[in-house]
Amino acid sequence: MTDKIQKVSTQFDQTIQAKIDGKTKPLGALGQLETIAKQLARVQAVSTNNVDSIVVTKPKLIIFAGDHGVASEGVSIAPSEVTGQMVANFAHGGAAINVFCRQLGWQLNVVDAGILHAPDEQLSIINQRLGASTNPLHTTEAMSLETVEQGFALASQLIKDTKASGSNLVAFGEMGIGNTTSASAMMAALMQVSAKDSVGKGTGISDEVVLKKQQVVEQALALHKDKLSDAKQVLACLGGFEIVQITGAMLAAAKAHMHIVVDGFICTAAAMTAIQIEPAVKDYMIFAHCSGEQGHKKMLNWLEVEPLLNLGLRLGEGTGAALALPLIQAAAAFYNEMASFEQANVANVV
Amino acid sequence: MTDKIQKVSTQFDQTIQAKIDGKTKPLGALGQLETIAKQLARVQAVSTNNVDSIVVTKPKLIIFAGDHGVASEGVSIAPSEVTGQMVANFAHGGAAINVFCRQLGWQLNVVDAGILHAPDEQLSIINQRLGASTNPLHTTEAMSLETVEQGFALASQLIKDTKASGSNLVAFGEMGIGNTTSASAMMAALMQVSAKDSVGKGTGISDEVVLKKQQVVEQALALHKDKLSDAKQVLACLGGFEIVQITGAMLAAAKAHMHIVVDGFICTAAAMTAIQIEPAVKDYMIFAHCSGEQGHKKMLNWLEVEPLLNLGLRLGEGTGAALALPLIQAAAAFYNEMASFEQANVANVV
Repeated sequence: MTDKIQKVSTQFDQTIQAKIDGKTKPLGALGQLETIAKQLARVQAVSTNNVDSIVVTKPKLIIFAGDHGVASEGVSIAPSEVTGQMVANFAHGGAAINVFCRQLGWQLNVVDAGILHAPDEQLSIINQRLGASTNPLHTTEAMSLETVEQGFALASQLIKDTKASGSNLVAFGEMGIGNTTSASAMMAALMQVSAKDSVGKGTGISDEVVLKKQQVVEQALALHKDKLSDAKQVLACLGGFEIVQITGAMLAAAKAHMHIVVDGFICTAAAMTAIQIEPAVKDYMIFAHCSGEQGHKKMLNWLEVEPLLNLGLRLGEGTGAALALPLIQAAAAFYNEMASFEQANVANVV
Repeated sequence: MTDKIQKVSTQFDQTIQAKIDGKTKPLGALGQLETIAKQLARVQAVSTNNVDSIVVTKPKLIIFAGDHGVASEGVSIAPSEVTGQMVANFAHGGAAINVFCRQLGWQLNVVDAGILHAPDEQLSIINQRLGASTNPLHTTEAMSLETVEQGFALASQLIKDTKASGSNLVAFGEMGIGNTTSASAMMAALMQVSAKDSVGKGTGISDEVVLKKQQVVEQALALHKDKLSDAKQVLACLGGFEIVQITGAMLAAAKAHMHIVVDGFICTAAAMTAIQIEPAVKDYMIFAHCSGEQGHKKMLNWLEVEPLLNLGLRLGEGTGAALALPLIQAAAAFYNEMASFEQANVANVV
């Protein structure tokens, strides 16, 4: 692993395209799966210098959980205590993300990135606590720049371990009451749009609470406005412990030439931040879905990326990323296994 | 099995909704997966009178292949011979649908519903031939009403066997050079729209060929206009051997209380026809995807249904239906396995 992310080369594009176009199907007839297959092949060629086949091994989903000082402002559907309760639910296997990971073959890790009360030590949760909760972002910095760097270092080590365990594809999920407020503020700062454009209903707040949330985000943007041209300052001023570690994990995964499956609104805020820090990280990202959170579609448009799914999910936990895995595996499978016109003795008329 | 399709009852809706809303997630946060879970539970209650859990057993995908007299008019990307070549490719396991079925756990059957040359007998292909090719639909009826009934009977028996083998969910795929012309004509007849609105690029024809295809469809609609208010006449005048058998299989599957996963443009034309024959069949249908064929989105809007995927596929073979299976299984899995707020000791604040 080098210190900088290696940009993905286009030198194999013709070979990859010829292989896809030689399959027994009309040109382009597998739509977005062809785009994904090309991306998988390109990324794997960074390490292997070879595009003969694609492998997806030991897909790993890591949920980072963190609590947010701003939650006490009443911007969320639930109190901060629910973050820890859901972390315990993850550890016990009862949440939506557990169900999907079991069904679809993801290995799942749960990371305490800094929730209100440290979880029961008997639960299988990785301790990467950066604190007990961030500071309220509308009255002060959510955390220091040192904490951001500490989060990056912890996430980077976890990704190194994940890679060493044989995984070449990672996705990230999050849990943190208040974190759509944080992500909305980050979106506004990074895309230079208003709080009105970035704030949405989260997992289901009322119109009244949306207004309150907008005010909090406006206040935060005004307070930190002189610092927000720097991506790490965006994380320090407006981020969350889980968002910081997801950003760091994305950068580390791209450094390790791993595929990164990007989940919904919160993870896309982390992805945008990672891209601002090192644009080459984007080459490694597969955008899993467009969530029901109103700002997410705007983020995806701004990034000029096409998500695989659009199911109206607004749960977080990495659920959208988890559900996209079979499509990614299908892209790899058609690339590897489909017969060519020649092999199948089918007339290629196009 | 009764002779009529049993309408799915709404008597369990409150129980189903309460079960979904009691799961550890915000209300509605699993978007379309919640809609699918509700539908699965409702349909299964027709047989079981119980909505405690959902099962998806031995999913079966059946490809019906047939040739079309209209193909000799030059409306397609390839000559009719390619239908048979692809059928052999299916039998040898080299096509996209084979790859996806293997990956996702579908059992696959290939049916010769009437292709130009009967396939090699050594290949594992079910013989349900209604002829060697339909008549050209723009100069005469594609087939007789007797042939439609014969196709329904063959398809019905195949579905009974599938049900008896333990499957409770079926999807259908198709292969037939010329069959988007047939399906476009059927769409125009059933939805009462023009050939211009219904004809698209199929698997990738030029603008010039699109015009030719429109003319052929217009001619067919004018020729048969006095008969097209009857759905079986639509099949006889404008259909294909594979489309007839898919329509019959859909009706038979609903009679057997099975879930029906509807693929793309051709299969949706069959679904629309089945719904016109017996509206209750729609209750059993899950719409898998919106294809790249321009008319498909209009069909789905007309039917007022929301497909699960939108990947720009335009391959047929049942590929879109195949790829939707993990989402259907995810809907069943969250319904069955997710913890309730009570079980997980998570505060339910909504």
